[in-house]
Amino acid sequence: MQALAPHAAPDTMTLSDLPTPCLVLDVDTLDRNVARLRAHLATLGVPLRPHLKTGKSIEVARRVMTTPTGPACVSTLQEARQFAAAGVTDITYAVGITQSKLPEILALRAQGVDLAILLDTVEQAEFVAAASREANVAMPALIEIDSDGHRAGVRPDDAATLVAIGRALAEGAELRGVLTHAGDSYSASGEGELARFAEMERRGVVDAATILRAAGLPCPVVSVGSTPTAHFARDLTSVTEVRAGVFTFQDLVMAGIGVCGIADIALSVLATVIGYQRHKGWILVDAGWMALSRDRGTAKQAVDQGYGLACDSTGMPYADLIVVDANQEHGILAIRPESGATLPDLKIGDRVRILPNHACATAAQHGAYHIVHGRSDDVAAVWPRFGGW
Amino acid sequence: MQALAPHAAPDTMTLSDLPTPCLVLDVDTLDRNVARLRAHLATLGVPLRPHLKTGKSIEVARRVMTTPTGPACVSTLQEARQFAAAGVTDITYAVGITQSKLPEILALRAQGVDLAILLDTVEQAEFVAAASREANVAMPALIEIDSDGHRAGVRPDDAATLVAIGRALAEGAELRGVLTHAGDSYSASGEGELARFAEMERRGVVDAATILRAAGLPCPVVSVGSTPTAHFARDLTSVTEVRAGVFTFQDLVMAGIGVCGIADIALSVLATVIGYQRHKGWILVDAGWMALSRDRGTAKQAVDQGYGLACDSTGMPYADLIVVDANQEHGILAIRPESGATLPDLKIGDRVRILPNHACATAAQHGAYHIVHGRSDDVAAVWPRFGGW
Repeated sequence: MQALAPHAAPDTMTLSDLPTPCLVLDVDTLDRNVARLRAHLATLGVPLRPHLKTGKSIEVARRVMTTPTGPACVSTLQEARQFAAAGVTDITYAVGITQSKLPEILALRAQGVDLAILLDTVEQAEFVAAASREANVAMPALIEIDSDGHRAGVRPDDAATLVAIGRALAEGAELRGVLTHAGDSYSASGEGELARFAEMERRGVVDAATILRAAGLPCPVVSVGSTPTAHFARDLTSVTEVRAGVFTFQDLVMAGIGVCGIADIALSVLATVIGYQRHKGWILVDAGWMALSRDRGTAKQAVDQGYGLACDSTGMPYADLIVVDANQEHGILAIRPESGATLPDLKIGDRVRILPNHACATAAQHGAYHIVHGRSDDVAAVWPRFGGW
Repeated sequence: MQALAPHAAPDTMTLSDLPTPCLVLDVDTLDRNVARLRAHLATLGVPLRPHLKTGKSIEVARRVMTTPTGPACVSTLQEARQFAAAGVTDITYAVGITQSKLPEILALRAQGVDLAILLDTVEQAEFVAAASREANVAMPALIEIDSDGHRAGVRPDDAATLVAIGRALAEGAELRGVLTHAGDSYSASGEGELARFAEMERRGVVDAATILRAAGLPCPVVSVGSTPTAHFARDLTSVTEVRAGVFTFQDLVMAGIGVCGIADIALSVLATVIGYQRHKGWILVDAGWMALSRDRGTAKQAVDQGYGLACDSTGMPYADLIVVDANQEHGILAIRPESGATLPDLKIGDRVRILPNHACATAAQHGAYHIVHGRSDDVAAVWPRFGGW
């Protein structure tokens, strides 16, 4: 999947000219989201390392990073490759490394990218050290810490494993530090609980760093991050950086756990009404799961948003109008079951915008962002996004 | 998203050389799936109009269509455009039409493609007829019939609407016939129930055709189709064509409702082991929901396959090893809860292949198919696939 060049849209292009379904990105809202998180982290004295996996776009990255060269975080080698080609030189590849990926890591480092990798086993540390010795390049690696039992990582109190990994890396590679991601914070809710997750993240990596340093090992980087914890951390003492990704666009899952409001969601899918089943209270649109993704992240939240919340063409939400079901290229809009709201009187050809459950998943279904400013109908630019690995 | 040219893989390329995650397509299994459905439909005397939305690939399309020019069915204008450019001239665009899409329909027809459209309201029939008159081109349209209450379509007994649509089309456009898709058959199970869905599909369109003909309207095409009903129809009297798409690759949802066996699934995602949490019985791989899709179509079936069923690198399933959870670039493999099976002893760097819940959704996450023959490790070719609208 090759990236197109970004381009300004013709002066007269409006949302009603776009073929549907397509992605709309309100860049004013994006800028507000970025400013909000930066301001919060500034009060805590910790810099942001934005995760670029949400946007997968050079133009989005440039608005989110604090400098044109980074720092940044990625989830695939494709992202590392694309952002490196765009001049980003400080990148953490935050998914457990395998031997097959080391040649490309070395190639990117040879191009001048300070690309750090992630691991959580002695086995990985040994092959990274061996490849470092062979290439005569000390690859920097972070040890992943499991602060909440969510996924990968060494438990923060597993001193034996931490020190064994650190020592194995010392044989040719570089121990850059420790990193954690409290993925379970996505199922938390409310300020108090999110603040507790943030403290659990902080405690996990700080404890691990203490163990490594006590063993005489270096640990310059102490990295935490997820969008929910980044916004609700109250104290980040001894943490050196915060990572977050979805905060850029925000989404219904984040709104559901109290990280943002509906008005903070910068991303939507523009769709056209293609039919209705009036006796069932259904309006059919041409955005199905191919355009929205199959993500049902709000299914277990207090408010289930189906496959997304429908707005008018300016981005103003309709009362309780959600995508109750989705097929490949069909979305079914209906009023939320428990609501007394009225189905809007939409005709075939009318346009709606659908807010996503999970911005990362929805954006991934598309090849470009159509940029608008606030409630304006004008398409200011088209920004390509890439996919693949 | 531009399509790459298909290419033969280097002679020495094997699955272990491929960067992961990526799509693997066993073309021998694909060919068997196609032969099976063709043979079944031949006994019923009805031709196949394959739905090309599953493959979104010229090379897949050529193996699935009965001739290089069609017939074929598509779900987006992008598919129509791509397959038209590859020489397919008999195409049904089987998603409700909007006015904004008519200029491209007319452009494709002007290129010599017999592109038929779908609608289910008088409103659509009127603007199609008006656009036909304006362009002096009688656009052929099928009336969508709602045979099972699943999604769109006119109810088969709603004679007033059927005839009104037919008469509106007659003012400049062409009434090509009637079409239905029993989408609810995906939640059926077992031969008897699937045969009943097939008969409901048949009965719906045949009844609608009878109403149209009795009103003096033409109805040459009587089209039914879904993968489950196509395989279990026992009688297709008065039906002129059968559409089906996912049968090409098959998947765990189809296996769960009894349409195929696990060994008939031609598509898998190749992934690499990147870690484990031994105390939890987890193996982590680099295929998360970005590579597998968020589809959880087996969640409500008798056997929940999580985000997919794991096989060894030759495609042989491990006993009860499924993707129990998925993050963006992480899949968590574990033994199915109720099973007594043993976790295989996989090391970091080992390769697995994951069978998808829903082949259409999983394939859509990728830009190419890596072609293998049966259990061979050799990559015979790389076939691009396209996305977008």
